Amino acid sequence: MKIIFQKDELTEALQATQRGISNKNTIPHLNGFFIQTHSDNTLSIITYDLEMGINYYLSTEILEQGSVVVPTKFFDIIKKLPEDQITFSVDQENYLITIESGQVYYEIKGLDPEEYPKLPEIEEGKSFSIPEILLKKMIHQTSFAVSKEETKPAFTGVLCKFDSDNKLDMVATDSYRLAWRKGKISNDSQISGEYIIPQKAIGQVQRIISEEDKLINLYLANGYFLCETEKVRLFSKLIDEEFPNLDQVIPKNYQTKVMIDRKFLQDSMERASLLASEGANNIVKLNISEENMEITSNSPHTGKLKEDLQLYKEGDNISIALNARFIIEVLKVIEEDQVELEFTGSYSPMIIRPRENDQYFHLILPVRAF
Amino acid sequence: MKIIFQKDELTEALQATQRGISNKNTIPHLNGFFIQTHSDNTLSIITYDLEMGINYYLSTEILEQGSVVVPTKFFDIIKKLPEDQITFSVDQENYLITIESGQVYYEIKGLDPEEYPKLPEIEEGKSFSIPEILLKKMIHQTSFAVSKEETKPAFTGVLCKFDSDNKLDMVATDSYRLAWRKGKISNDSQISGEYIIPQKAIGQVQRIISEEDKLINLYLANGYFLCETEKVRLFSKLIDEEFPNLDQVIPKNYQTKVMIDRKFLQDSMERASLLASEGANNIVKLNISEENMEITSNSPHTGKLKEDLQLYKEGDNISIALNARFIIEVLKVIEEDQVELEFTGSYSPMIIRPRENDQYFHLILPVRAF
Repeated sequence: MKIIFQKDELTEALQATQRGISNKNTIPHLNGFFIQTHSDNTLSIITYDLEMGINYYLSTEILEQGSVVVPTKFFDIIKKLPEDQITFSVDQENYLITIESGQVYYEIKGLDPEEYPKLPEIEEGKSFSIPEILLKKMIHQTSFAVSKEETKPAFTGVLCKFDSDNKLDMVATDSYRLAWRKGKISNDSQISGEYIIPQKAIGQVQRIISEEDKLINLYLANGYFLCETEKVRLFSKLIDEEFPNLDQVIPKNYQTKVMIDRKFLQDSMERASLLASEGANNIVKLNISEENMEITSNSPHTGKLKEDLQLYKEGDNISIALNARFIIEVLKVIEEDQVELEFTGSYSPMIIRPRENDQYFHLILPVRAF
Repeated sequence: MKIIFQKDELTEALQATQRGISNKNTIPHLNGFFIQTHSDNTLSIITYDLEMGINYYLSTEILEQGSVVVPTKFFDIIKKLPEDQITFSVDQENYLITIESGQVYYEIKGLDPEEYPKLPEIEEGKSFSIPEILLKKMIHQTSFAVSKEETKPAFTGVLCKFDSDNKLDMVATDSYRLAWRKGKISNDSQISGEYIIPQKAIGQVQRIISEEDKLINLYLANGYFLCETEKVRLFSKLIDEEFPNLDQVIPKNYQTKVMIDRKFLQDSMERASLLASEGANNIVKLNISEENMEITSNSPHTGKLKEDLQLYKEGDNISIALNARFIIEVLKVIEEDQVELEFTGSYSPMIIRPRENDQYFHLILPVRAF
């Protein structure tokens, strides 16, 4: 095996694939990059963790066909090479790799590519398409709310709900809060039903897609999901669990509705959480009456905060205790300058949504602190 | 106690003093900022760890005199306040602090200033002056070589050697390498002899002085060293130890001398240390013959590196094994484009110095690896 790489192209490929290497792997081959040439002067650089795989296609000058597994240290070495042109050769007998660049000569130990775990055969199955920029936003506004705990596997991914009307909803929850983003797709294969994409894979999708308006195709088939850009093919197992029906959790109307400047509210929550974070659950109390919201937080060790924010209110006065960190996190993914908060009582979920945008809402359960 | 602060001025003061708070303090008062007003609309913000103290002078509007110890969380709060003007008041009965800024009202618990440990009385004693930029460079080129181990206390600080000729030498060593920087001072009080300034304090001096040519005064007296800028008074205990005489360690002549591009050598050492760092002592081998230096390093697990660097050589061929990290660290503090390496044998110290600058040299002991 002998290849001529350009340093910047190879660096980009390794950058894109290295996130596919899990640090929990017990199979040594999975802790490396699987490099395999194809007959048309292209090659694949592959990483895989038995759940998710990333295949990066690179066009380059191939002098001798072959394949090898290179250790992750390979990437550190490539970054430090002095010249743009890199000659990479592998002795296919013992998988000894030599890397030459200018006056620099490295010899590193590779692994037998035959022992690399087989990648799953994924049928292309049903597909839909969506503008990359919209998909990126939908992921950005939901995936942060995914549960970090493995005890409820369905909540460790983002739910994709398809309906016949060319609609896709993305939903994520950790059972204390819930993010819901609606979107329009071109549903060519009439996909319906619900699919849960693991948090790690959905995060990778967000990384490999652009902020452009162009369409990307996504495929769903035999327990896998697949997404392809010009250079990268990314696939992942779906989470094989039932996502609970959350419709009854979501209040259908409200007793109190306030309109408030997003940035003011975020700054204020950050101030409150300086003290709140010392207690349990980051508790901040909101006391809404007339055109004022009094925000208080309290730390038995350090002291307390009180501040007033002006707002526009409809409906009843209300007091409620919430986790300040949850409020900060959702305000960070909303782009609009104004947000609306809806309350149905001190012990019922609060809803935050961007003003004049019905494509997104976020629900936060109150903390029983009164 | 009641003070009107400007947010940016107070932030700057807390920034400068917070490094004086040690996280190893057992006295709770030392984990805070000691704030004390003076009669002339100035106040001091002080931090102290029983070894080193920082006193920052701030001019501001003082409505009521007083003093208090505020917890470090105070700084986090100040950074998040919405308005430039901050009203700070203390109830001198119970040291409850209120902070007001716009619609924001914080109440935090302060501590009794009477229980703050007494700062040492430092005589101004003997003093010398030096351009700030020169002092900054001298510290930069020596302090990284100070020992991190407490077993040889003399080596945990930077040695300042004065001689009658208006010369100051700064020396630091961890017993594997040694950095030596010469400098010219204005030695008004004819200071002579040797003083060891702790690493932490010398690092603070480096931070508070500017990169300008203006002179700064430093004082040495009764076991303390003291340095004052317009806003900050910094003092520290000296290390009360004998610094060993290192003159006999330093080779007086050489058998081999090479001249080499600093950047090329640094890049090459960084490549070598990718493999060397896995072994003991970051070992890299230099093999110098004629106009070439062959650099090799080896990791039993990963592989090996070989590269050639062109250089200009005087004297014998030589092979030597060295710690690559030590070479990288000294090359980072040398500004000149070319460096000279001097060798007196495979088991004798190597000297690195900037070309055509006799004010600095650095010595590295070889590793016995052959």
